[in-house]
Amino acid sequence: MGMDYIKDGAEIYRRSFATIRAEADLSALPGDVAGVVVRMIHACGMTDLAGDVRYDPAIVAAARAALQAGAPILCDAKMVASGVTRPRLPAGNEVLCFLDDAATPQLAATFGTTRSAAAVELWRDRIEGAVVAIGNAPTTLFHLLERLDGGWPRPAAIVGLPVGFIGAAESKAELARDSRGVPFVTLLGRRGGSAMTVAALNALADPKE
Amino acid sequence: MGMDYIKDGAEIYRRSFATIRAEADLSALPGDVAGVVVRMIHACGMTDLAGDVRYDPAIVAAARAALQAGAPILCDAKMVASGVTRPRLPAGNEVLCFLDDAATPQLAATFGTTRSAAAVELWRDRIEGAVVAIGNAPTTLFHLLERLDGGWPRPAAIVGLPVGFIGAAESKAELARDSRGVPFVTLLGRRGGSAMTVAALNALADPKE
Repeated sequence: MGMDYIKDGAEIYRRSFATIRAEADLSALPGDVAGVVVRMIHACGMTDLAGDVRYDPAIVAAARAALQAGAPILCDAKMVASGVTRPRLPAGNEVLCFLDDAATPQLAATFGTTRSAAAVELWRDRIEGAVVAIGNAPTTLFHLLERLDGGWPRPAAIVGLPVGFIGAAESKAELARDSRGVPFVTLLGRRGGSAMTVAALNALADPKE
Repeated sequence: MGMDYIKDGAEIYRRSFATIRAEADLSALPGDVAGVVVRMIHACGMTDLAGDVRYDPAIVAAARAALQAGAPILCDAKMVASGVTRPRLPAGNEVLCFLDDAATPQLAATFGTTRSAAAVELWRDRIEGAVVAIGNAPTTLFHLLERLDGGWPRPAAIVGLPVGFIGAAESKAELARDSRGVPFVTLLGRRGGSAMTVAALNALADPKE
């Protein structure tokens, strides 16, 4: 009573990436960035993503070097932290999310912002040279950019992929316009999210498809 | 040096859902299903989703009653399990994912399938009356349908939203064609994923927007 479908995980990956590379227009992207975008497409099923991607050409080299040197990954959402494939991380890197930290609600009240944005305050001591991954809240990305404007140390890379209808497009356009000197990858418009962010992190951590 | 953006979380939610309801064509959906689809759209930023949704009209009542009665949620992916908003669950429901169970690799070898599909075998003792949430692997959904064809007890509801290029569209089309008597919600085509699945679960657990 079995159905006819492919059950071999490696073959599923191979055919998936072949389909993406056949359908998506990756011709404008450097090879290492294309590898990241292929995984982002894999996570959402949409090959038209490539046209909306914006990036610093240094993003892959910068993020990979940071991770190889043991940098932590600072995430805005627990789903992002949960999704990172630990065996792909080159140095057993810490994957941190402070959304549920005991200090976050008071910080949100103090700054009059969301918990997701307030949790950025708890990145302060770890952000220099870290890889930042924002896959949920536009307010997190806005708050981070404000802190960088205020003189915070620079992270090694920003994966900026908040999703949604209020502030997502605006925060990502601002990152693409001026990433405050930090290598970045982002996606213009409303699309984004935790799965796509995890896919980008997994590609940055390890070039293996 | 602040930027101009909305920082009030409640207001962000309110405006987000208002934008979705203004832009998405939800007119063909029952009110309770529309509430689920609004959250799915919120998770991915795409208001055109509504046209690809397929569902059993009983899905919301069935899933909500099961959760209120204490049913577990059986997830294919850790990101799905991680993302469910615990305070929305009406009975402190268990949220289970067996992907990393010690038995899963051997089951995958035995059945010649992916770990994601093999983990379904470990649902056997908990599936009767449970809420199933598949947000990643098409093989998980195919394997579940095969087991239901083989006489397994019925879950209360299936949220079937695997994503991707190999088997995703096919597995969801099969669920929509014949859900084996189980109330379901799915999305035709390649789109889906863990964030959308979590959004659907959060809506099924609690009608509050």
